[in-house]
Amino acid sequence: MIGVDTMEGKSMIDLNSDVGESFGAYRIGLDEEVIPLISSANIGCGFHGGDPRVMRKTIALAQEHGVAIGAHPGFPDLIGFGRRKIDATLEEIRDYVTYQIGALQAFAIMQKMRLQHVKAHGALYNMAERDLGIWEAIAQVIATLDRELILVAMAGPMREEIKKIGERYGIRVGFEFFADRAYNGDGSLVSRREPGAVIHDHRQAAERVLKMVMEKRITAIDGAEIEVIADTICVHGDNPAAVRLAKQIREGLVAAGVEISPMGEFL
Amino acid sequence: MIGVDTMEGKSMIDLNSDVGESFGAYRIGLDEEVIPLISSANIGCGFHGGDPRVMRKTIALAQEHGVAIGAHPGFPDLIGFGRRKIDATLEEIRDYVTYQIGALQAFAIMQKMRLQHVKAHGALYNMAERDLGIWEAIAQVIATLDRELILVAMAGPMREEIKKIGERYGIRVGFEFFADRAYNGDGSLVSRREPGAVIHDHRQAAERVLKMVMEKRITAIDGAEIEVIADTICVHGDNPAAVRLAKQIREGLVAAGVEISPMGEFL
Amino acid sequence: MIGVDTMEGKSMIDLNSDVGESFGAYRIGLDEEVIPLISSANIGCGFHGGDPRVMRKTIALAQEHGVAIGAHPGFPDLIGFGRRKIDATLEEIRDYVTYQIGALQAFAIMQKMRLQHVKAHGALYNMAERDLGIWEAIAQVIATLDRELILVAMAGPMREEIKKIGERYGIRVGFEFFADRAYNGDGSLVSRREPGAVIHDHRQAAERVLKMVMEKRITAIDGAEIEVIADTICVHGDNPAAVRLAKQIREGLVAAGVEISPMGEFL
Amino acid sequence: MIGVDTMEGKSMIDLNSDVGESFGAYRIGLDEEVIPLISSANIGCGFHGGDPRVMRKTIALAQEHGVAIGAHPGFPDLIGFGRRKIDATLEEIRDYVTYQIGALQAFAIMQKMRLQHVKAHGALYNMAERDLGIWEAIAQVIATLDRELILVAMAGPMREEIKKIGERYGIRVGFEFFADRAYNGDGSLVSRREPGAVIHDHRQAAERVLKMVMEKRITAIDGAEIEVIADTICVHGDNPAAVRLAKQIREGLVAAGVEISPMGEFL
Repeated sequence: MIGVDTMEGKSMIDLNSDVGESFGAYRIGLDEEVIPLISSANIGCGFHGGDPRVMRKTIALAQEHGVAIGAHPGFPDLIGFGRRKIDATLEEIRDYVTYQIGALQAFAIMQKMRLQHVKAHGALYNMAERDLGIWEAIAQVIATLDRELILVAMAGPMREEIKKIGERYGIRVGFEFFADRAYNGDGSLVSRREPGAVIHDHRQAAERVLKMVMEKRITAIDGAEIEVIADTICVHGDNPAAVRLAKQIREGLVAAGVEISPMGEFL
Repeated sequence: MIGVDTMEGKSMIDLNSDVGESFGAYRIGLDEEVIPLISSANIGCGFHGGDPRVMRKTIALAQEHGVAIGAHPGFPDLIGFGRRKIDATLEEIRDYVTYQIGALQAFAIMQKMRLQHVKAHGALYNMAERDLGIWEAIAQVIATLDRELILVAMAGPMREEIKKIGERYGIRVGFEFFADRAYNGDGSLVSRREPGAVIHDHRQAAERVLKMVMEKRITAIDGAEIEVIADTICVHGDNPAAVRLAKQIREGLVAAGVEISPMGEFL
Repeated sequence: MIGVDTMEGKSMIDLNSDVGESFGAYRIGLDEEVIPLISSANIGCGFHGGDPRVMRKTIALAQEHGVAIGAHPGFPDLIGFGRRKIDATLEEIRDYVTYQIGALQAFAIMQKMRLQHVKAHGALYNMAERDLGIWEAIAQVIATLDRELILVAMAGPMREEIKKIGERYGIRVGFEFFADRAYNGDGSLVSRREPGAVIHDHRQAAERVLKMVMEKRITAIDGAEIEVIADTICVHGDNPAAVRLAKQIREGLVAAGVEISPMGEFL
Repeated sequence: MIGVDTMEGKSMIDLNSDVGESFGAYRIGLDEEVIPLISSANIGCGFHGGDPRVMRKTIALAQEHGVAIGAHPGFPDLIGFGRRKIDATLEEIRDYVTYQIGALQAFAIMQKMRLQHVKAHGALYNMAERDLGIWEAIAQVIATLDRELILVAMAGPMREEIKKIGERYGIRVGFEFFADRAYNGDGSLVSRREPGAVIHDHRQAAERVLKMVMEKRITAIDGAEIEVIADTICVHGDNPAAVRLAKQIREGLVAAGVEISPMGEFL
């Protein structure tokens, strides 16, 4: 770490993960294992995954581990797990997001907690990356509903525009980096259809996370060094390997003296 | 009205109706016509009826007419419109009610309104009339989520027990009277399967409402005079005849000097 | 009719309408009024609209009026009434169509009827008009499930390609014309976002239907005369005006000696 | 086995299991492991579990292993996995069952297979055990839709009445025995709320299955020997232990010379 100019407060990072996506009798995700490793939990709100009971239980689990909670609203497409683009209007998106944040907020209040952030799920997130109007729609909801909520968006090519939206609506934006995804030279994600899109080597993934946190830069798939400024790192809990990666990333960060903390504490 | 001992504050009554139960392309209920006639709107929250857009629009309509709003949570049974008993656990019921109140609350906040009450829908309401545990489950949610919310329950045989639940949880209970339903001698509703269960004669319905409000008593189906103390009268907007009845009831009350007002203002 | 070269069997046309789209307590469409006017009913199968009870009742109504029945499968998007594009895979589309045809077929068998045709609903139909792969996916299902089923597609710019798909899979294709929609010079529908997309003048609509049937041509929105060869005309039963238009179209055809008959009888 | 009077054709038994209950991204049940062990697969049809893709894949898996397939219709209660009683009318039940059988039948036809049986799921099955009207409703559907379908019902106290329903409607009934459940002296299942309701000792379970098959009798929870005549044994694939039990049961039967065969082959 010699030579890395780490100022106080710069060596903090948030780790987030999508959890609370089980539904009824259906279990998905190793929530019990991944929640102790992260600092911010994105909790499904019942549209693409999650249900009232799961929401309550996931908040309790997050609370137990001192993890901040956020809404993870998606499209009303349970059968598609919210992963399919739906050409909903911005009005529909605002309504869907409002509904889902509200539902989760009630469970948070019931447990004396408060929502920290909102991170769109799946296709809604991906569509937003191609349509600033969607980020703005979510920002509008947050600004009216609870100005303290942080909008989580991708630390990608639209970073500056999204930042401006946040400023315009007077809300904080938390930018996220994907630990296990390759990036193009322009800072966008390499499409999953391309070879090398997902980084399967855990050591490599943990190292680039560390580099991103310490140096604000990563090596893109084309070999270029690109700047990436992120507040939170997305890790997964879908399967045992994902959990191991999350653990490795966490341990790497801690060993390097980086403090893992909910983004609400430093944004 | 000679001889009727009407104290100040006793001549106030609330009129409530179930609205906001449309879903997607499907319209149900003459909300635009019935909302101007009532003082409290029970708004569907998306489980038995209602959807995010409908919730937003219904709150706007209520706001425009100075009508107080409340959550109208039901079972997750859209195909059955929440009218079928489901042997859900009390835990499930608490979770369902929490979720639905929260979702509606978000739309209320977005429009600078506040929820006034919670009235269970359909089978959930009917099951509660046979199982105090359900009233208590809803009371628990209200007490933890927002102590200002009024629990709406039937002014029937369980009135005293429900009142005690309200006291135990430190929340207000609003008791409701059904304008177009016949009552048994014990204060319960005559089952819809029995002849005479529904009062189709509008004048008769309006008159008994007035009598209930002024004298705190009605004539049961067996001819007995029974005491009914209610804070709110349930009217319907399902069809033109129901709206006409609501109008007639309203006009009868106004003509008799009764003030129609959201229950939150006098409870 | 002088000068019109009407061969025997050419003066037959089918009238189809989307019906059976009610759901639970929700009524949509004036099925009782429009079904007596048509010869082929496209029945919702429970994904975008329709439910088991509605499917049974709609088949009974069609049977009563001697109307042929067909499946009207859509996307699993009840809240969007199947009108929103969902980027489902062709495999998903095949599975959705199979499921829905099968479900309706069971109700047909229960009432000693047989499905005549399959017409995709809403966004699925519109997406197919831009992606031959979707027509092919539906054709594959029909060819394997029941080769007697007619695939209904738009008599538009892709007519020849769709015809070839039908030939390749050994199934019949019924091409449809939209009575109340303006056409572009290339035979495609004028987008609803453009002015003049919907023909509101009933007389005009009825006359162009008649011209299309008798002369196989219509006047496009740009004034050009274009050829349109269709087997079935789509009419609507959404509202009283739509039903009146359907009636006017029917009467115009009958007066001109055109026989209205289910497409299965002449294709 | 000395002394056991095993006639030819009596030493055949069917093994059935509930499979195909995954939904979208959600996996439930070890279908790949349990299907090779059974002879009849009860496949979810999308109401309580299962979806179009899962139905297609499960049929393919059954076909690969020479396992007969049947419909496993449940209540439209995905969030409750069809395990909660819903006070649906018999008409609703008939419609739900028709719809689900039809949907599955289409996938069977697509793969050149034919449905063998219908076994109600969860609460629908349990409610039928208390209400002969439900067995009759399902029998009506089968008799009209496809008289070759076998109605699967519990080999319990209502055996004779259900048998008569089968005779009245001209359909076969396959009676089933639960391998891992204790029975009361009257042949009903010990409620899961009672101690000892579920038999956790695999050897004990396998032995009583064998006794039931060979001697048509089991030892009830009160120690009484009761007669149980069953055609099929229900095993589970919910978890690794359940699969091990299924394997043990199968091996025990095979070792005793019992032939495991789809019930359709010997009923």
